[in-house]
Amino acid sequence: MTMVAESTVDREFGVTAPAGFRAAGVAAGIKASRALDLALVVNDGPSDTAAAVFTRNQVKAAPVLWSQQVLAGRRLRAVVLNSGGANACTGPKGFQDTHATAEKVAAALGIGAIDVAVCSTGLIGELLPMDAVLCGVDAAASALDAGREAGLAAATAVMTTDTVPKQATLRHPDGWTVGGFAKGAGMIAPSMATMLAVLTTDALVDGATADAALREAVRTTFDRLDIDGSMSTNDTVLLLASGASGAQPEPAELTGALTAVCADLAAQLQADAEGVTKEINVTVRGAASEDDAVHAARTVARDSLVKTALFGSDPNWGRIAAAVGYSPARVDPDRLDIAINGVTLCRGGTFATDRSTVDLSGRTIEVVVDLGLGSGTATILTTDLSHGYVEENSAYSS
Amino acid sequence: MTMVAESTVDREFGVTAPAGFRAAGVAAGIKASRALDLALVVNDGPSDTAAAVFTRNQVKAAPVLWSQQVLAGRRLRAVVLNSGGANACTGPKGFQDTHATAEKVAAALGIGAIDVAVCSTGLIGELLPMDAVLCGVDAAASALDAGREAGLAAATAVMTTDTVPKQATLRHPDGWTVGGFAKGAGMIAPSMATMLAVLTTDALVDGATADAALREAVRTTFDRLDIDGSMSTNDTVLLLASGASGAQPEPAELTGALTAVCADLAAQLQADAEGVTKEINVTVRGAASEDDAVHAARTVARDSLVKTALFGSDPNWGRIAAAVGYSPARVDPDRLDIAINGVTLCRGGTFATDRSTVDLSGRTIEVVVDLGLGSGTATILTTDLSHGYVEENSAYSS
Repeated sequence: MTMVAESTVDREFGVTAPAGFRAAGVAAGIKASRALDLALVVNDGPSDTAAAVFTRNQVKAAPVLWSQQVLAGRRLRAVVLNSGGANACTGPKGFQDTHATAEKVAAALGIGAIDVAVCSTGLIGELLPMDAVLCGVDAAASALDAGREAGLAAATAVMTTDTVPKQATLRHPDGWTVGGFAKGAGMIAPSMATMLAVLTTDALVDGATADAALREAVRTTFDRLDIDGSMSTNDTVLLLASGASGAQPEPAELTGALTAVCADLAAQLQADAEGVTKEINVTVRGAASEDDAVHAARTVARDSLVKTALFGSDPNWGRIAAAVGYSPARVDPDRLDIAINGVTLCRGGTFATDRSTVDLSGRTIEVVVDLGLGSGTATILTTDLSHGYVEENSAYSS
Repeated sequence: MTMVAESTVDREFGVTAPAGFRAAGVAAGIKASRALDLALVVNDGPSDTAAAVFTRNQVKAAPVLWSQQVLAGRRLRAVVLNSGGANACTGPKGFQDTHATAEKVAAALGIGAIDVAVCSTGLIGELLPMDAVLCGVDAAASALDAGREAGLAAATAVMTTDTVPKQATLRHPDGWTVGGFAKGAGMIAPSMATMLAVLTTDALVDGATADAALREAVRTTFDRLDIDGSMSTNDTVLLLASGASGAQPEPAELTGALTAVCADLAAQLQADAEGVTKEINVTVRGAASEDDAVHAARTVARDSLVKTALFGSDPNWGRIAAAVGYSPARVDPDRLDIAINGVTLCRGGTFATDRSTVDLSGRTIEVVVDLGLGSGTATILTTDLSHGYVEENSAYSS
């Protein structure tokens, strides 16, 4: 796979960076706070190729059920997104509301409802205020613009407990560009999908290539972000390709660019997670397989005792050893090495270095576990479990 | 199975309630606090039948590796337990230390080391102060007594972050008795075992019957306690049967009595869990199988967003629906009912009742999920995720 250096990703532009896209973000009145809460992204073509990855949660929100049908043809002209309500566990009425939203977008743009994906995020189990949503669609359609401010407004309108919008852009030397935004600060454990993210490109690409490239990019980026082990009912990643650049990249180049943009967006999600005080990267190497590496790293990343210890700047490697041991990965306790911020504290399953030599005062913590069994490697991005996380998730419904 | 009413379980007596047992708890100096930290329980017979269930964690502490070997013959004369150190991830030296501890007990009691199980609990990754341990064994052997105070001292000596000792006794009308103690306040997600627990009985029972009865009792009690999803390296449940009553219960009666005592001890562990402010019982019924019910209930019980919402007395059933949906259990979203403290908030996968009608001000919260698919039922005991849990596990190494 052709990897593109992350240094070529910038965060100044998002979905409107590639040619052929317009966007808008408006305050529709879905949120009581009157903040921006409805976003629209439109692909003006000439191509309308699209791909998507959705949550594997068995309880799927109405907009996910709708968008899965829409994406079956791998074509999309527009996506409408709202914060302020997930429209999940809302029954047939919730699905009708999603359909009506797509119809409204279609009427405003002169396209078909089948060309419109819908994404929602917010509290589960409540109906959306449809008057506000439908008026918001008209306002957003009127505000559509190809400029930088419009892309930023769209990225801002999908925020829930996020404190900052997340955008990323990669401009390929061959004349095509990938842009995108993402949202999500809690209920993040995607497993084949992620929180809401919209990616755009002006590359010329067919549906099968777009689908394969997006799946591979998501597999190694958003899928390896795990804030709290809780998989959402609404996770959706969309890719819209306009073909407006006329450039037709090799599939591996497209995959590399998408991976770089997704990795950057995932890092931004990690940095802005609920209650985060430490950004923790758990790498497992030497696993019997890549799957084993993912399982072991994910188990460590989800362990409440590991996460609270690191919140307290305590290099408690015994809790990491225990978590590796109860993971589904194959483990030989006598070959287990554990390093934190470059100091090997456990070698061959027993203590190696005084843990007081590890400095955890910084914001980033690198945990490296070597299982000594093979060549499987994976990194899961997570955060600590802090008083801020408990406060944010106990004091407010979200 | 013959169930014994829980009301017949009392908490005044523990391992010395059945005839044929002596116990002791001493301050050996393993803990810097000089609190009680070494316990000894001795079976004076005439029978020496025993059974055990151990952690399934692939990283097993030295005392678990030792005790697994000792229990292969289903006979045991004594068990020595220490708090103040888990003796896990301590390599060959750690195993030698466990062996030396068993030899010391054997010499003091005039039995073989192969008759002595060892249990340890505390910080992972550090060697025990063996001078203190070995002197403590002598002190404990001298203090052995069949009285109530001796049993309480043993139950107290195994405490780590526990705030109270946990004991339970059931006196069967047919003249035999089951007693026991347990410890554990965090790193509790046993899955085929539990934190340290020692059960005693004066029933006359063979090894195979004892083994089957203990496994069944543990499967539906300790295995369904899940405080934080973290499986320990040291979990051990032991049963010692002296036969001193001369009574030989039916296997189902024994299983019922053990289940009642284990259930009571598990409830005590739940009530004293780290940072607990709410005792939460998650029942899943209508599952396609009992395994599915356990999986779904466990996923809800482990979900950080559910646990923080309930800490905040917020009946956020949408988070429960999301957790059920990402569990490995088979789920039909359109048949999902969710009730909290008796109020059905979600019926057929959508909202049913205004959630403000639910009163969560009390300490106990009953969550009942009906999957509407079959007759599988299970309850997992857990607690909320509070500031106290984060404080306890970030500010101190344990």
